[in-house]
This record gives sequence, C-alpha cells and structure tokens, in this order.
Amino acid sequence: MILELINIGDELLIGQTINTNASWIGQFLSQRGVRVSKAVTIQDEKEDILRQLEDCLSRADVVLITGGLGPTKDDITKETLCEFFGGKLEMHDETLQRITEYFESKGRPMLESNVNQAMLPNVCEILPNYNGTAPGMWFEKDDKVVVSLPGVPYEMKPLISEGVFPRLNERYQFADIYQSSIMTTGIGESFLAEKIKNWEDKLRSDELSLAYLPSPGIVRLRVTSYKGENDKEKVEQYMNTLKELVGDYYYGEENESLALVVGKLLAEQKRTIGTVESCTSGGIAAEITKIPGASSYFEGSYVTYSNRLKNEKVGVPYEVLETQGAVSQECVELMAVNGRESLGTDFCLASSGIAGPDGGTSEKPVGTVWIAVAFKEGVFSKKFMFGNDRERNTKMSVLSALNMLRLLLLGRLDN
Amino acid sequence: MILELINIGDELLIGQTINTNASWIGQFLSQRGVRVSKAVTIQDEKEDILRQLEDCLSRADVVLITGGLGPTKDDITKETLCEFFGGKLEMHDETLQRITEYFESKGRPMLESNVNQAMLPNVCEILPNYNGTAPGMWFEKDDKVVVSLPGVPYEMKPLISEGVFPRLNERYQFADIYQSSIMTTGIGESFLAEKIKNWEDKLRSDELSLAYLPSPGIVRLRVTSYKGENDKEKVEQYMNTLKELVGDYYYGEENESLALVVGKLLAEQKRTIGTVESCTSGGIAAEITKIPGASSYFEGSYVTYSNRLKNEKVGVPYEVLETQGAVSQECVELMAVNGRESLGTDFCLASSGIAGPDGGTSEKPVGTVWIAVAFKEGVFSKKFMFGNDRERNTKMSVLSALNMLRLLLLGRLDN
Repeated sequence: MILELINIGDELLIGQTINTNASWIGQFLSQRGVRVSKAVTIQDEKEDILRQLEDCLSRADVVLITGGLGPTKDDITKETLCEFFGGKLEMHDETLQRITEYFESKGRPMLESNVNQAMLPNVCEILPNYNGTAPGMWFEKDDKVVVSLPGVPYEMKPLISEGVFPRLNERYQFADIYQSSIMTTGIGESFLAEKIKNWEDKLRSDELSLAYLPSPGIVRLRVTSYKGENDKEKVEQYMNTLKELVGDYYYGEENESLALVVGKLLAEQKRTIGTVESCTSGGIAAEITKIPGASSYFEGSYVTYSNRLKNEKVGVPYEVLETQGAVSQECVELMAVNGRESLGTDFCLASSGIAGPDGGTSEKPVGTVWIAVAFKEGVFSKKFMFGNDRERNTKMSVLSALNMLRLLLLGRLDN
Repeated sequence: MILELINIGDELLIGQTINTNASWIGQFLSQRGVRVSKAVTIQDEKEDILRQLEDCLSRADVVLITGGLGPTKDDITKETLCEFFGGKLEMHDETLQRITEYFESKGRPMLESNVNQAMLPNVCEILPNYNGTAPGMWFEKDDKVVVSLPGVPYEMKPLISEGVFPRLNERYQFADIYQSSIMTTGIGESFLAEKIKNWEDKLRSDELSLAYLPSPGIVRLRVTSYKGENDKEKVEQYMNTLKELVGDYYYGEENESLALVVGKLLAEQKRTIGTVESCTSGGIAAEITKIPGASSYFEGSYVTYSNRLKNEKVGVPYEVLETQGAVSQECVELMAVNGRESLGTDFCLASSGIAGPDGGTSEKPVGTVWIAVAFKEGVFSKKFMFGNDRERNTKMSVLSALNMLRLLLLGRLDN
C-alpha cells in the first residue's frame, strides 16, 4: 500500500505557517507501520490541486489531503474534489445540524458561509468533525482512496486517529511494527556509525532496520521490526547489546531529555544541584526546570556574566580573571566549587566560554567553552570547542554540562 | 520564473524532524518577491530523487534541493545528482582543505567518510559551506538551474542568503517588492484587528496588503507593496499612522526581538540590568544574552528557585514566604529591590509564578505569575494569568518581564 500526502495552503509555501501537519501525520502513521512515501505542499489553486491529485494517484493507493476547507472564498478544495470525482454539492443535514450546534455551544452567530460548509459532495462518505465546522470527506475510485481533511491541527488529528486510520487499517491490515530507541549524547553520527558497524550489519541481516535520528548534541538510535510484538524479545536483545557498545554515550530511552534523566538520578539519590553560569547565562537552570517537579532537587543559581559578579558572588580573584581570563580552567573550577558552597547544594555546574560572534582570539577562538562540576570530594572540568553559532554554542554548552553531571551521578566521570 | 523545492529525508516523512527548512526558504524568498510554487518531501531513495527531479524540471526553471548530503551511507543525493547531470565525482581540493580546517578547528579527528565529502561532481559549481562539511552544488542544464544544499538549517541558511539568492537575482532580476513591518506585544491578534480596522480598510483600498504574523506573546504586522521602492514613502506613511494607532503595544521594527530592543535602550541610556528569577529560572537572563554584546549592560542574576535561596540571597523573610507565599506581590517586589542592590545594577527584573502542571490552587491557579522591576526610585509589579502549559507560561513570563522593563526605560510604565 502506497500512501502520499498533499498539504494545501499558500501560508505553508510562504513560510507563514510551519507545516507541522505533515510531521504529525508522518509520525502517527510510521508508528503504526504505515509509511508516507511523499509529502507535497501546493497552493490553493484549482489547477494545481487537480494536477497533483492525478500525479499522486498514478503511484499511490491512498492520498491524504489537508487544508483548503475553510469558509472563505480562497478555499476551493471541496469544489475541486467534487468535480474530480464527478459529483454534485448537496446539503448534508447531519453536518448542518452539527455546525449549528457548534456555533450555539460557542455562543457565536452562524454566518451564511458556515451554512455553505454543509454543502458537500454526494460522492463521498462524510467523516464528522467534532472540533470544527468542515467535515472530512472519504472518496473512492478504481480501488483507490482519497481523503480530504481540514488543515487546523486540532480538527485534523482526531479525524486521522479516530476516522481515517481505523478505516485504512480495516482495508489494508497493516503490518504490526515494533520499535525501540535509545538516546545518545557526546558523540557524532559518523563516530557512532563506526562504533556499531558490525552490530548494525548483523541487525540488518536479521531483517531489522536502524535509523539515526540526530538533533544538536543528541543522536537517537531507533530499531524497527515489521513483525510487531513477535519480534519484541529479539529487538530488545539487540538493544541491550547496543547499549553496551555505545557505553557512556548512551543516556536514556525513547525520547527522554538529558534534563529528565539527570533529574531522575538526582531525585533517586536525594541530591541537590545549583549552577553558576557565565556563557550559558541561566540556560542550564532553565533546562533543568523544564522538568515538572524539578524543585525537589534544583535549588538555584548565580548568573555571573560580568567579571565583577564572578569576583563578588563566587570569589574568583581578579588576579585569575586578569592572568588566566574568565574562560579558563581555573576560573570555571572556582565558580563551581565556591558556587556549590554558597548555594548550599550537593553539586554545582559552572560554565564559562566565548559564545560569539565576537570576543574570540587565536588562542581561545569563538566556541571555546569550559564546563565544571563541583562535588563534595572535588571538582572536574573539561574544555569544549563548539563552533561559530552563538545559539548553538549555548545549547551545546547546556547539554554538555548536564551530561557531565549525569556521568558524575553514575560514577563514570573519568570515562 | 517558476521555483520548486525538494526536501530529501526519511526523518521528515516519519515526522522525526519538522520541516522548518521549507518554511524558512518560503519566507526568505517570498519576502524578496520570489514564490515557492510547490514543495515536495521525498525519501532518501535514488529512484525517488531522479523521478522527482524530472517531474519538477518539467515545470520549474529553478529547483532547490535540501538534505541527503551527510557522510553516512544512506545519504545518496550527491551521487544521484552527479549521475543525473552526467558527471563524475572528483576530489575537490578547496573543499578538502575546508573540511580539514573545520575538523582541526574543532580539535576532532577526520574520518574517511568526511574525506569522501570532498569528492564532488565535476559538472557543477561548488558553493562553499563555512559552517559544515558538505558544500552546496549549483548545476545548470537546458537553461534550468538545480541547486543542492545540506539539510542542516544553520548550514543551509547562509548558503541560500549569501550563495544562492544573489546568483538567482542576478539571473532573473526579481520583481521588486517593498515590505515594512512593526512588532507588537501584549495584545492579541483579534484585539489588534479591531483597533486598526479603519486603517486596514484604507490600506487595502490603496493596493497594499497586510499580514498578521503571530507567535506566542508577539504579533508582527507586515505591509507589502508590489511596486517596490516606488511605494516606499507611501508605505512608510501608513506605518507611521499604524505605530500611533498601536501605541505602547508597538515595540520594534521588522524582526526585532524584545531582548534586542531592551538591550539597545539600556546601551543608549548606559544603564545596567540584573535579574532575580524563580519560575523563569534563568530564562530572562538567557533571553537577554541571546543578543551579542549584552555584556555591556547585563551583569548577572540570581535564580532563587527554592524558598531557602529567596531568603538567603535576596532577603525575602520566611514570614512573607509563609503568609503571602512565594507567588505574591510582596515576595516578587522584595526579590527585585534587594536583588538590584545585591547585584549592583541600575534595574532588576524579578519573577515568581506557578508554571505548572502542578502546584496550582483555586486562589492561585497554574499560570499565575508576578513580575516586578526595581529601579532607583522604587519598584513596579504586576500579576499575569497565563494558562496551563508550563513551557508557554515560562516564555510569556520572560516576554512580559522584558516588556515591563522596556516601558520603564521609555518612561511609560503606568500605561
């Protein structure tokens, strides 16, 4: 079964709206063993819609369409599909009643243009929309299926999950898929690939597939079986071997963030954390507290952006700031050690670096960042070299700091 | 000139990555008078790439391609394009040198797979990539242009703005459009629309168009003329009237962030700022320092997430914390006033609120946030009621704090 997606909307092509519908549908379906093999975004133009539909139907068994069903004049999908399938628009009483009730429930008047939304092609099955005015439309022709859905995400999503997917599954009985992922950090995609090469070859020869899913500082590794739960044990055995191979770069399951994993470790070990931040400027603290309940282990921070505050708040001597500079091992270790004491926490993370775009030297180029973590018995620090992008440098610094704390909490910081 | 876009990547089709490249390119080009008439996402499959390229070239004069240029085996765009244009892969010395320098600057070893990235088709112009390893490739055939770019956003964007667009503009001399925007904050889209209704009607009757471009806490208003610089004076007259109508909700030009506007005011007035943050947990500090050069006005912060640190670091008496609570006017004003003194800054912003999802009461529901700003002559504070979403509450709190400081710096805080 081949499935293609058409998203209709000028606002998508001019970048006013990011096409989150395509990614949501892709994720929803791929997790259920269905692949979107192509996704096309086109304008609200009759000729474009007709041409694209013909093109998709030349390959696909199922074409999903979103958008262009609003009450305004520039939305022409319904009329175009009606013509394509050789039908006529007729008043659909059930839909009219639903639209009427919808406006009554909101206490808003119903316009003529909304009444017209109940005029529907007489050659499709109507999929009721409980969250808006435009229903879904299910067309069939020559054993192929075309489904048209509204583009508003919270109207489209339940129509897919409760209307479209169950019908497709009944028709095609999709292969049951089983997936398992692990999260890695501190290692790039190509180094990871080198490290697990033999394992990956064996996996593939065993009819399983592997995806590398990278985002800044993180690579997620996902194994897929198309035999569903039957393969669960086999897949999990591979995952266990993978975790061993990846070693300390492996930090969590599925979509877990580093902040979540570190937070769980802190809560389990009943330890507290604080931060003293320069280049990350509160970013580590903000990341830690994205996790609800972080107050049980996170106490607070100093942001010591200026040298004066590095001196006044966490006692970095001016001599160090002048001779070694703020971006130095000595400075960041003092920030961590003194910050830990002053904040009264079990651990303290500290950052000092050159985020850019200015301030770099040949000795300390933009992207040079020192991270330290202080603990009862001492302090550990490490120099990183990121790149030229200020935003990315900050993000990488935050992740590297959290990863350093994770390794410390696991007793593996030397690795 | 017809331009179509092809985004290559399994991760886009399975929804692992949201296709922000398509929207960024759409926005960048539409602001310069070029329309993306179709955007297609396809898999990392040779046959799919070839078929799609043929299809796009049957309509388009220019095809932009992103993605599939990584060092791993599943990235096959380069080989496929080389074959399509009848070339051979040859070592490109300049690119090899750039890649070598890139790895040297990061202090990381270079792998065989990275060396291979310098093997490039001998039938294209190479567009150097200063932010990564895979360069852009500019192909021409039968008076049509095909450009292939890496999919990593911070590599792709400068390649478009500095490499591809100037070349396209030289070739096609795009219709001149003139656009002007203002940024507003603290007012919703529909209230704004009511406020400027008459102005908008007049604008449209004058052959100008208006777009409302909303993001959390911010609405950007953009006026477009398709007569280019000829309309500049007319458009700017409308913009001036618009600024008066919008009043204090208007905060900046084009795509300026609140942090940038506030930073410029602080720099102009030679004043300094610090923060004392609870619910935003360093988020205000992190937002302020997104602006390069923020060190000239930003000194630093306390993140006082725990009540203990609110007491120890900024002297909020336990009595206040127990009787009024941490989320109270008295607490947040003490945080701001004492923080200002302790940090030694001209101004100090403070936040305390219930970000959620837990911790709300009927009296103080989730989303209740107090923001204060302290200055030489006193302190101003305000209660906000946001919603149930933790991430959005934090973001809205950060923006509201910066907006409060902006109004203070402009001498308009009472409004």
